[in-house]
Amino acid sequence: MITSSSNSRIKNVIQLTGKAKARKEQHSFVVEGAKMFLEAPNDRIKEIYVSERLLKKSLSEKGELFTKLQEMEYEVVADDVFDRMCDTKTPQGILCVVEQLFYTLPEVLAVPNGLWMVLEDIQDPGNLGTILRTGEGAGIHGVIMTRNTVDIYNPKTIRATMGSIYRIPFVYVEKLSLALAYMKDLGIKIYAAHLSGRNFYDYIDFREKTAFLIGNEGNGLTEETAGLASAYLKIPMEGQVESLNAGVAAAVLMYEAKRQRDQLPRI
Amino acid sequence: MITSSSNSRIKNVIQLTGKAKARKEQHSFVVEGAKMFLEAPNDRIKEIYVSERLLKKSLSEKGELFTKLQEMEYEVVADDVFDRMCDTKTPQGILCVVEQLFYTLPEVLAVPNGLWMVLEDIQDPGNLGTILRTGEGAGIHGVIMTRNTVDIYNPKTIRATMGSIYRIPFVYVEKLSLALAYMKDLGIKIYAAHLSGRNFYDYIDFREKTAFLIGNEGNGLTEETAGLASAYLKIPMEGQVESLNAGVAAAVLMYEAKRQRDQLPRI
Repeated sequence: MITSSSNSRIKNVIQLTGKAKARKEQHSFVVEGAKMFLEAPNDRIKEIYVSERLLKKSLSEKGELFTKLQEMEYEVVADDVFDRMCDTKTPQGILCVVEQLFYTLPEVLAVPNGLWMVLEDIQDPGNLGTILRTGEGAGIHGVIMTRNTVDIYNPKTIRATMGSIYRIPFVYVEKLSLALAYMKDLGIKIYAAHLSGRNFYDYIDFREKTAFLIGNEGNGLTEETAGLASAYLKIPMEGQVESLNAGVAAAVLMYEAKRQRDQLPRI
Repeated sequence: MITSSSNSRIKNVIQLTGKAKARKEQHSFVVEGAKMFLEAPNDRIKEIYVSERLLKKSLSEKGELFTKLQEMEYEVVADDVFDRMCDTKTPQGILCVVEQLFYTLPEVLAVPNGLWMVLEDIQDPGNLGTILRTGEGAGIHGVIMTRNTVDIYNPKTIRATMGSIYRIPFVYVEKLSLALAYMKDLGIKIYAAHLSGRNFYDYIDFREKTAFLIGNEGNGLTEETAGLASAYLKIPMEGQVESLNAGVAAAVLMYEAKRQRDQLPRI
């Protein structure tokens, strides 16, 4: 059992939780909580830490957590040390180091009639995580992000994904203009929500290869990127609302695409 | 000019920012930033504080901010004191104390063919604010909340509303069951997203008086409240997604209602 927070492995977990650079160097990220542990693919889990408290509880309950722990190697950690390792206010008592996956742009795009999100410089970790979670629900096939988008392995992003981070392919691209040109060559239509859009989003057919461009929370899309869209669209807004939250705009668009793709009869 | 953070008015602003109790006692709340100042109705603004820095800037620029300030009384505050008054990391230099508005439930419901959100114990200030912002965009007529919902005057909620807090009527109710019974008596159909829902949300007609029930982020709706819905509905989800973020679920439902109410021809 680890009883000291100066243990080198504990220190490394704290580094991985707090620092994007450490995550990048070690190709790893940290997930907390039972749900994130249970949904993690076994072959990507590198280290598991369980608090004394949770271990006792899981030994007596013999539930799902117990079953998965039986199959794996794990370290037991004294409760006070465990709490110091965690990013959350009320740690659940389990945490693992997971291997990052690296997709290339062609891999992310290798779906016959896909639906993708393209994110330019999204800064709020919660927004990014929510877009992945909603995106999995709406059936998207991947997320393409600019280099200046917040780190997807930020603990707040991971929490907000509720596990979708394991399942939705994503890629950071060096130059968005090149990625967009490549996507257009593949026949993907790229839509941007834009003030000068004339067509409402629910007038447009999203059943063929489609990507939605979502811009930074404060500034929206850069002019350069907006200029590379195949077409603009408009989400209608009542009252004095000038724009929607990035995660909300993404949700409205993705669920409209899903509705069309499910071909449900509608009112 | 106020140059000391021990000034009693400055201390009071800090209280109002940090403490729901102080806000309740004084029927006031604090808003930060130029946008929130410019959109605040003049007759509800009780106090205005401007940093030295911003005052100089606005005097030279003579923009919208300058024009509105000319019409009002305001206090100038030394920059370092101003920064200490603020809840944000990068204060914009203007902050005001605004009078709270109190609506009764009948007032919130006094719209012929309304659309309302009913929130049970939403805890995340950002989610609540986003629901108001999206709601104004989607054309809702008000928000009904349980007593245990996060304080709508929390600075994070206010920021997330992007000004909708001034325009969307809302009310906290003591007993949600009584409010729902009252709403049903008025002929309002109350829909809950629920696992046992059989109809997809986009199969249902929301063009008559409609309310959507949204539950707490972690636990969803309580059984008691879900039992009081007029009908259940289902938002379809792909992959392993078990639920959507509260703000996202609200957005998908509100924008579907808007789509139907706008009677746009659809694909």
